[in-house]
Amino acid sequence: MKKISDSTISRLSKYYRTLERLQKENIETVSSDEIAEIDDVTSAQVRKDLSFFGTFGKRGLGYKIEELKINIGKILGLNREWNVAIIGIGNIGMALIDYAEFKKRGFYIKLLLDNDVSKIGKKVKNLEIKNFLHAESYLKKEEIQIVIIAVPARVAQSVADAAIKSGIGAILNFAPLNIKTPDSVIVKNENMSIELEALSYYLTNN
Amino acid sequence: MKKISDSTISRLSKYYRTLERLQKENIETVSSDEIAEIDDVTSAQVRKDLSFFGTFGKRGLGYKIEELKINIGKILGLNREWNVAIIGIGNIGMALIDYAEFKKRGFYIKLLLDNDVSKIGKKVKNLEIKNFLHAESYLKKEEIQIVIIAVPARVAQSVADAAIKSGIGAILNFAPLNIKTPDSVIVKNENMSIELEALSYYLTNN
Repeated sequence: MKKISDSTISRLSKYYRTLERLQKENIETVSSDEIAEIDDVTSAQVRKDLSFFGTFGKRGLGYKIEELKINIGKILGLNREWNVAIIGIGNIGMALIDYAEFKKRGFYIKLLLDNDVSKIGKKVKNLEIKNFLHAESYLKKEEIQIVIIAVPARVAQSVADAAIKSGIGAILNFAPLNIKTPDSVIVKNENMSIELEALSYYLTNN
Repeated sequence: MKKISDSTISRLSKYYRTLERLQKENIETVSSDEIAEIDDVTSAQVRKDLSFFGTFGKRGLGYKIEELKINIGKILGLNREWNVAIIGIGNIGMALIDYAEFKKRGFYIKLLLDNDVSKIGKKVKNLEIKNFLHAESYLKKEEIQIVIIAVPARVAQSVADAAIKSGIGAILNFAPLNIKTPDSVIVKNENMSIELEALSYYLTNN
């Protein structure tokens, strides 16, 4: 398979949601023009993105929604369950525990870790907050595949290092700094001010 | 100015951070190759993105960091202050109030709104939570330009409608649904599971 850019992957996530929504409305086929219109990209872009994975659509007939959704789901790894840990149970951590969309997409929060003794042992949504000191054994025991880091910036790198040391291959980082990892570990940095900058761009230029 | 894609705008935000970091290290010039290496895009992409705004770089000499940073900042509207309101002071709202990056980029949280009587009147970081019932007058009084919606999905659209009615032109939505707005209003939907899907993509395909 050719190397796919991050932008393509995030567009696939959007297409997936669009297909899901159309399916709920009992629609069975969709054209690249229609997907493009809903997701605010060009139809050439839609066709190009989907062509990476072989041609699922038929000229003039469009794409079968069910089939396309299953195919995109497989590409994105949404056809299975993922075990997720959250490290840092502050406001962001708490917000993420509550985030219904995660479970809907197959991301199951199985482990909460913190180093704050006033939090350790407390339960949130039936999950007990565990001591970060023993992170390695908990991460292994719960077979965690993805770690979400929601700790202050000054400790984020050391928390990531500990997670990587216990064999974690994927990290979603909410701390406002770029975490450095070996090439074998994937990190996505969630920066909540990037979207605000897109808004200020539009407010400035329109 | 040509129409610029959302992806370009989000890359500009990344370049801006990279330039800021290089400047802190007392570096004065940078090539498109170096920016590309740090931000994990091709150097052709960097040159293309920057070419939208005129050529700031000189062949063989690279870009002057200070100048390029100021120019990107102007494009993104980061050379000024923006007044921001948060509607919905739950876990996500609380996390955003604490998010230092916003202020650093010129996004000042000036107004907190909620409809929960147990929250109204309480202070968070020196800002009193105001009654959403009177949203229109508060939004006008505080000259809010950007509204962040952090309410449950089932009320997000009506909250957005109220904000738009009071003249708000830009909305950042954290509720897990796509808010519909007139063409004159810009909305960005922050979907925290999109980045997780990029991770599951990599875990699945590598």
